[in-house]
Amino acid sequence: MAVYVYKFGGTSVGSVERIKAVAEKVKKVHDQGDQLVVVVSAMSGETNRLTTLATQMQTAPIAREMDVLLATGEQVTTALLSMALNEMGCPACSYTGGQVRIETDSTHTKARIKSIDDKKIYADLNAGRVVVVAGFQGVDEHGNITTLGRGGSDTTAVALAAALKADECHIYTDVDGVYTTDPRVEPKARRLDKITFEEMLEMSSLGSKILQIRSVEFAGKYNVALRVLSSFSEGRGTLITYEESAVEQALISGIAFNRDEAKLTITGVPDIPGAASKILGPVADANIEIDMIIQNVADDATTDFTFTVHRNDFVKAKDILIKICHDLNAKAVTADDSIVKVSIVGVGMRSHAGIASKMFAVLADEAINIQMISTSEIKISVVVAEKYLELAVRALHAAFELDQEPKEA
Amino acid sequence: MAVYVYKFGGTSVGSVERIKAVAEKVKKVHDQGDQLVVVVSAMSGETNRLTTLATQMQTAPIAREMDVLLATGEQVTTALLSMALNEMGCPACSYTGGQVRIETDSTHTKARIKSIDDKKIYADLNAGRVVVVAGFQGVDEHGNITTLGRGGSDTTAVALAAALKADECHIYTDVDGVYTTDPRVEPKARRLDKITFEEMLEMSSLGSKILQIRSVEFAGKYNVALRVLSSFSEGRGTLITYEESAVEQALISGIAFNRDEAKLTITGVPDIPGAASKILGPVADANIEIDMIIQNVADDATTDFTFTVHRNDFVKAKDILIKICHDLNAKAVTADDSIVKVSIVGVGMRSHAGIASKMFAVLADEAINIQMISTSEIKISVVVAEKYLELAVRALHAAFELDQEPKEA
Repeated sequence: MAVYVYKFGGTSVGSVERIKAVAEKVKKVHDQGDQLVVVVSAMSGETNRLTTLATQMQTAPIAREMDVLLATGEQVTTALLSMALNEMGCPACSYTGGQVRIETDSTHTKARIKSIDDKKIYADLNAGRVVVVAGFQGVDEHGNITTLGRGGSDTTAVALAAALKADECHIYTDVDGVYTTDPRVEPKARRLDKITFEEMLEMSSLGSKILQIRSVEFAGKYNVALRVLSSFSEGRGTLITYEESAVEQALISGIAFNRDEAKLTITGVPDIPGAASKILGPVADANIEIDMIIQNVADDATTDFTFTVHRNDFVKAKDILIKICHDLNAKAVTADDSIVKVSIVGVGMRSHAGIASKMFAVLADEAINIQMISTSEIKISVVVAEKYLELAVRALHAAFELDQEPKEA
Repeated sequence: MAVYVYKFGGTSVGSVERIKAVAEKVKKVHDQGDQLVVVVSAMSGETNRLTTLATQMQTAPIAREMDVLLATGEQVTTALLSMALNEMGCPACSYTGGQVRIETDSTHTKARIKSIDDKKIYADLNAGRVVVVAGFQGVDEHGNITTLGRGGSDTTAVALAAALKADECHIYTDVDGVYTTDPRVEPKARRLDKITFEEMLEMSSLGSKILQIRSVEFAGKYNVALRVLSSFSEGRGTLITYEESAVEQALISGIAFNRDEAKLTITGVPDIPGAASKILGPVADANIEIDMIIQNVADDATTDFTFTVHRNDFVKAKDILIKICHDLNAKAVTADDSIVKVSIVGVGMRSHAGIASKMFAVLADEAINIQMISTSEIKISVVVAEKYLELAVRALHAAFELDQEPKEA
């Protein structure tokens, strides 16, 4: 008997018929004698409907109330799925995040999970029931409803799998696994059977939106075996695992890209200690997340400082930066929201030199100008003009032979 | 500084505009320095939308899951109203029933309130915030979401007013007070300035659907001053109070009627001890509520037994009765769902004889046949054929001079 956590996103539970299809899938596993916790998102469209209502009430809805509002979306799905399961003769019970005591911090709309009470869930599982849990939500220590942010249902699923020491956590989506890159950009993209947590982390943080980044971090930290599969077709999907000695030992596992970034530069900053924190402090205080950061020394006395933010925060960040520019007596602020980030990712690159130079050469051959570079142990990212996105992805995909099955290690 | 509990029903919060209008009304009171708890229902239409989804999942949705589902309706309204208030600069905070710890028993879809924690609410009130609470819902001792049944938001409001020892509990509806009878049936119906709890109890249990009966019971029990007013117009509404020495000392305060009843008779029941419980036991076990009961001795050995139920339960009750008829070796079951109950209500009738005979005479003058009679201290009810409803109400309204302001006592 195995314990599984299954997670179904908004499209997978988007209608009465689809919820019933999910119930069929769940019942089949339950009938085999396995224990099952099912995490669901709000029915597709519901979160947008609620958000529209909220913005009609308040131009910038209070975060606490937004959480109270949005949490209802998942709650509705849990009740409906539980009804569908019971109707099929499969005993089931629904819970909100707060009820199974998914305790979070108090950062409304972006809360982090602190603890989960596994006793309540195991009591139901051991009584032969399927446990249906509302994704995306929890309660803080004062009992306030919190939400985990967009895609937070993945995090809920992984956190539950960790707390329950589940055998596997299945994330059902509208894709049948993790691909070497987005097939809409490169039709030759290939599904991976396995990918490491680290690679997946880089892939999702870089804009391969299959899984929410925090859920992958969580899975890695608690060693939860995570599998990405399609709700709508059969197949084994992609297993996300710790094993580095995978059969597939490609240098590069995939190419990720992110269209949601914007670039900001402040030039002529007096090169004194603390300048960076004077620039980034107010940006962070405004709850703007910063991705890449580059600092170049321009001349003896001043420096240029460039960073990227989410495009949603572009205007806000620019306004803050203009004020900082004045306060610091810097020269100017330049801003560009027509950029993309393209990254190559792979654990294999650790032990192989020359990957970076090959990447830059491929882009140079296509006459694509590189605006920023950032690297980590297992990825290299470049910022280029948005118009080059497809060209860059396809050229790199071909150059690193991602369309071909990898050779044995 | 006074403490008020305001309750707004589904129509009063049925759109973004109406929620904003409610917020305006609330803000005005808050600005005067009074403390305010606002109880809201689901936006009109929402409960039906959710119920439709549920019945698509399960022919008879499980009560526990139904509660999880329906409770979201009120939760959405609390968040939206709180946003609207905050947008107007009026600090507010929303809570589900479970969060302010409205603890109920575990009878899903029809739970009863056991206790309320007033500390949490007073902490917010004393911090200058308006507290917005989801009506209709609570949690049982195990933390399961429960609902109080249709109209349960009234009960929530009154229970909160009692727990908080509020000065008044205002129920905002789409009518501007309690009338001597339904103005759609008798256009000469007059709004009452005051009515006693007992009268109101009889009026609402008899089908004057302004307030849910349990909320009136609660208000009477805990001596909560209850006021019924219109959400859409100004005016003082009707105060529901204990004072019997009201200025208005009419014999009769109003005429109530109920179209939702159906009559069932089992004839030729052997007249042995325990026959009544053998008939009513299985009906009660099926969760069917019985209203009027009459037993007539037909001859030496057998008796006829008649009772009324809600029309929704008519078919179910008839089926049960047919089985009982067979088991008890009784003669036959007759059933009629084309009946109505018409009642005259008034604390004044206690000390005045002759009210009943006057009522029967008025109906006889109109050639209306009385099928059943039932009386209490302050009301007399008759069952008549449905077609006589309007005629009976108007004749009684005129005969008891309800269209005229009452004389001083």
